[in-house]
Amino acid sequence: MSTVNNSNMNIVIRIQIDKMLITFSDIAKEIGEMGGDIVGIDVISSSKTHTIRDITINVNDQKHSHLMTEKMKDLEGVHVVSVSDRTFLLHIGGKIEVQSKNPIKNRDDLSRVYTPGVAKVCTAISEEPSKAFSLTIKRNTVAVVSDGTAVLGLGDIGPLAAMPVMEGKAMLFKQMGEVDAFPICLDTKDTEEIIQIVKSIAPAFGGINLEDISSPRCFEIEKRLKEELDIPVFHDDQHGTAVVILAGLINALKLTEKKLSEIKVVLTGIGAAGTACAKILLGAGVKNIIGVDINGAIHRREKYRNPSWTEFAKLTNPDNETGSLSDVIEGADVFIGVSAPGLLTVEHLKKMARDPIVFAMANPDPEIDPELAEPYVRVMATGRSDYPNQINNVLCFPGIFRGALDCRARIINEEMKIAAAQAIASVVTDDELNESYIIPSVFNKKVVERVREAVIKAAYKTEVARKDPLIIDSRLSK
Amino acid sequence: MSTVNNSNMNIVIRIQIDKMLITFSDIAKEIGEMGGDIVGIDVISSSKTHTIRDITINVNDQKHSHLMTEKMKDLEGVHVVSVSDRTFLLHIGGKIEVQSKNPIKNRDDLSRVYTPGVAKVCTAISEEPSKAFSLTIKRNTVAVVSDGTAVLGLGDIGPLAAMPVMEGKAMLFKQMGEVDAFPICLDTKDTEEIIQIVKSIAPAFGGINLEDISSPRCFEIEKRLKEELDIPVFHDDQHGTAVVILAGLINALKLTEKKLSEIKVVLTGIGAAGTACAKILLGAGVKNIIGVDINGAIHRREKYRNPSWTEFAKLTNPDNETGSLSDVIEGADVFIGVSAPGLLTVEHLKKMARDPIVFAMANPDPEIDPELAEPYVRVMATGRSDYPNQINNVLCFPGIFRGALDCRARIINEEMKIAAAQAIASVVTDDELNESYIIPSVFNKKVVERVREAVIKAAYKTEVARKDPLIIDSRLSK
Repeated sequence: MSTVNNSNMNIVIRIQIDKMLITFSDIAKEIGEMGGDIVGIDVISSSKTHTIRDITINVNDQKHSHLMTEKMKDLEGVHVVSVSDRTFLLHIGGKIEVQSKNPIKNRDDLSRVYTPGVAKVCTAISEEPSKAFSLTIKRNTVAVVSDGTAVLGLGDIGPLAAMPVMEGKAMLFKQMGEVDAFPICLDTKDTEEIIQIVKSIAPAFGGINLEDISSPRCFEIEKRLKEELDIPVFHDDQHGTAVVILAGLINALKLTEKKLSEIKVVLTGIGAAGTACAKILLGAGVKNIIGVDINGAIHRREKYRNPSWTEFAKLTNPDNETGSLSDVIEGADVFIGVSAPGLLTVEHLKKMARDPIVFAMANPDPEIDPELAEPYVRVMATGRSDYPNQINNVLCFPGIFRGALDCRARIINEEMKIAAAQAIASVVTDDELNESYIIPSVFNKKVVERVREAVIKAAYKTEVARKDPLIIDSRLSK
Repeated sequence: MSTVNNSNMNIVIRIQIDKMLITFSDIAKEIGEMGGDIVGIDVISSSKTHTIRDITINVNDQKHSHLMTEKMKDLEGVHVVSVSDRTFLLHIGGKIEVQSKNPIKNRDDLSRVYTPGVAKVCTAISEEPSKAFSLTIKRNTVAVVSDGTAVLGLGDIGPLAAMPVMEGKAMLFKQMGEVDAFPICLDTKDTEEIIQIVKSIAPAFGGINLEDISSPRCFEIEKRLKEELDIPVFHDDQHGTAVVILAGLINALKLTEKKLSEIKVVLTGIGAAGTACAKILLGAGVKNIIGVDINGAIHRREKYRNPSWTEFAKLTNPDNETGSLSDVIEGADVFIGVSAPGLLTVEHLKKMARDPIVFAMANPDPEIDPELAEPYVRVMATGRSDYPNQINNVLCFPGIFRGALDCRARIINEEMKIAAAQAIASVVTDDELNESYIIPSVFNKKVVERVREAVIKAAYKTEVARKDPLIIDSRLSK
């Protein structure tokens, strides 16, 4: 059920041909004999002795592509410069660009956007720094900051290799939320350095989205930046996931007719996402959450080396339940996994209370195979796009930043996150709601506007918004 | 001769009106009585008790605008929220935005630009970091880095207030050179911190344009970054100015039929721009440059506290001339001022050799009033747009970075800068060349392409280009 259909795909092989050693028709013949179908040829450059050409070839699959490339490499007089498939082609040259909002058509324009006219705009900001929020890109721009230490399932691949993800994030910010986002990939893993750098580059930005920074450094970095900056700082891997899980849970509980305050939740994986998830659930009214990590249930009688586990124990597990997942899953209404594949079994599901709700978020392979779980659960959600109920951060970050920027919020607080979760849940109407549809699609255009409105209301209620509410209200009523 | 025509301009006054205290027609009447002409009214928001409106008013001039605003402030029930003129309106919300190159139309697109497809692009870069130059925005993106310490003539106005200039620079990079540029305004003045921050954020960028950083910190920052990064680092205030001055000088010397190697140049202002200017002139073949600062001519017999002056003395003034500007200007062929208004007098001009060439770059008021100088000079250039021969950095930075990015140059070296200057000069043909036209207009579309070609050639010649020249050559021949 993979969403990426690799059968019959196009690849582009760029080859440098030594004209003295081989002709292009020889090469074309080899490609044909291997079952490749040439669909296009672009001459990139040509000299007396060499040419460089991009050959677009239709191949059967990844393996076929590999064989084709290896064959090219073996040909005398052919040097394979690069091989790109459709995905690679979308990334060439990067996926975002910086555009002027207005063209500079003549000297008069130039004198207004640049010297000498720009001087009076600079002076106005210098005299009243808050004017930067209206007279510069600070009004609408978020930094997507990563050190490349926890990228997707790839781990610590470094700042250069993290760029394609951060650029993709910037695309989503713009398309979904009309937020300008720019990737800042840092060539350091030092917590204090990261804090200092983000503080130093903050003037250009109206918000900071932390991304793919490994635990536990991400906690300290986010905490300190929230304290030391006057713009929202949001670690999406923690809070984006938590917000969307809460949204899904709100709707799942409508189906099972249970209340947040009455359910027992078992949560596996007490890292960045797990911790944030527990916090937002507690904030939303859940009383009984039991965290489970490699050594079993986390409870207050144990001493933990990891200070975030000690903290976690304080806030959760009111009955001080102990033991393994098998023990504490007994009677649970909800299982939330942000941990590892295969951790949850059918035996576990059988021990849960009536109408089990399972959020198995491990990526790409969930804590339990959805098809295996199906007979035993009432509602199942995963992080995958090829099963129903995908818990996807894209539902949260564009709208939550859109709202925070529009009301010029100093921070994104728990109230704003809970409001965002409720707003996401509200997009699925009672008529539409069913076991396979507890969460809207990432392409549902209602999501951002609903989240934005809810976040702005929560920001004013908690007094973290700095913009004149009269101006905001009119936009809301649009 | 100001280029900004302020007569009969429009301003936008945003006012909050207390409906209980005043009606809009009362306000309109007051505006009319003061000679203001209301050309538009936009209701921004409205509640039972208040409305916020943007009133666009045609006024005579800045003073009229001020009187109008003060009158509004005096009216009971009126709160003036903001006043914007045409220049301010161009800056509202910032002047640049981040755009996706391709829309994400469906789930298939999403899976290629973001998870899960993006993972293989990340992996490819992780395995071969140089692929970031083709698979990310590093290929075409420059950071415009400033600490806001030497902005225009305004001085140390800080990073927030520097943003409008850096955004303007980014607009020019894009429009003139198709370079994506993003402003990084740093909330620190510490040399070591700035070096460390720029190094840390470098992964996303293919080049660093340093801007408006005060001397002498700018020297150390640029020097160290050039040593420690593998992408071009270019302090535009130094080298952009130097390149365009050399371009103008090459053409001015054609008119006076003198050679670079034979002229005597007197240079006032031995700061960032002056030092860079001397270096490029020496590199281009000038033998006799005499620097003059507040204490007179800089020469090798003197001990200077400022190490950059000692360095300067070593490279210049071969005859060890001493004394004031009045002394050393005797017999000079060229005067270049990057110093202060009014420093050069008619008496000085009279002492120069035949056909004096004067580049009076102090901004906004040159070292000598061009009208005063006119009878005594052969060629006169300034930094101003309202006189002939404007020496404007915009002629250099878009093309020099365009070239450096296209051939993936590791640095921008002196050879590339001199090539850029020659290219700019070459845009003015021998037929066109005259005393009032030694340098092309900033809107001349030939400039960027000429500079780009010349810079790429120089980069290959000096072996600092990293891209396969075959691919480059084809683009050059376009």
